[in-house]
Amino acid sequence: NIPDFPKQGINFKDITPLLKNPVALKVAVQQLTSQFKNRNITAVAGIEARGFIFGSLIAWELGVSFIPLRKLGKLPAEIKQIDYALEYGFSTLEVHADALTITDKVLLVDDLLATGGTAQASCELIESLDATIVACAFIIELDDLNGKKLLENHEIYSLLHY
Amino acid sequence: NIPDFPKQGINFKDITPLLKNPVALKVAVQQLTSQFKNRNITAVAGIEARGFIFGSLIAWELGVSFIPLRKLGKLPAEIKQIDYALEYGFSTLEVHADALTITDKVLLVDDLLATGGTAQASCELIESLDATIVACAFIIELDDLNGKKLLENHEIYSLLHY
Repeated sequence: NIPDFPKQGINFKDITPLLKNPVALKVAVQQLTSQFKNRNITAVAGIEARGFIFGSLIAWELGVSFIPLRKLGKLPAEIKQIDYALEYGFSTLEVHADALTITDKVLLVDDLLATGGTAQASCELIESLDATIVACAFIIELDDLNGKKLLENHEIYSLLHY
Repeated sequence: NIPDFPKQGINFKDITPLLKNPVALKVAVQQLTSQFKNRNITAVAGIEARGFIFGSLIAWELGVSFIPLRKLGKLPAEIKQIDYALEYGFSTLEVHADALTITDKVLLVDDLLATGGTAQASCELIESLDATIVACAFIIELDDLNGKKLLENHEIYSLLHY
């Protein structure tokens, strides 16, 4: 917990100590991955930027595609995009239009489930390519913020609950 | 190659097809990793955001720490930072002040070596924590842009040259 980041009153969950400890990271990634073996997942989608770290490791362990969901203007080829509301203002996520197809079964990965807005937008973006969301997986879920509610159509798995 | 991205006249090297192909990605990451076994590396530093993908996979394969080098304002704890020149304007990279120490031997990883400005700033940032750079590793090096020149004090390994 890092107090008052990014602003007063927020206890930020810092995942960098986990990344620094290769034994702990291996346990975390393998425990998360073990939930999704034998589920016929074809791709892991990771949300920029911390979701790139956990998403690529989980895709590696599952032996499937890694699909980056990126912020506005970062992906070079033809894209699909979604605008979504944040606490103040809006943000945009993009995916390459040819990244996924109707036969893909996708595991969405991010480090943290908070209010669920970014994860919900990510699911809609993936479904706009006609792919199926198998589940949404997180290292940490902040239970009080009730992100599960926004994702109620989807299976959710979080390694740690606070 | 994606022509005219991010602007007219630039042929952007799109690495998303490599991420989508788990067999090709495994070959690329393992070939890169094999250069740095038995070099006593203790940590891989990856540059936000695409360097997070390759950096975390290489750290995983080497069984060492992954240290994210992040853009301004993203890291929650005490940081060291460096400002550096881009083609137009300036940018900032940050690292947690306790991420590395004098005993660390670091492999710097990014997807692409172009002019070398970001990689050079990353090396200075790592060295500001008294850690040693063992080498800088890239998936792609754009030979014409001569990024090697800026990094001349460091060993460089790139998987693909264009």
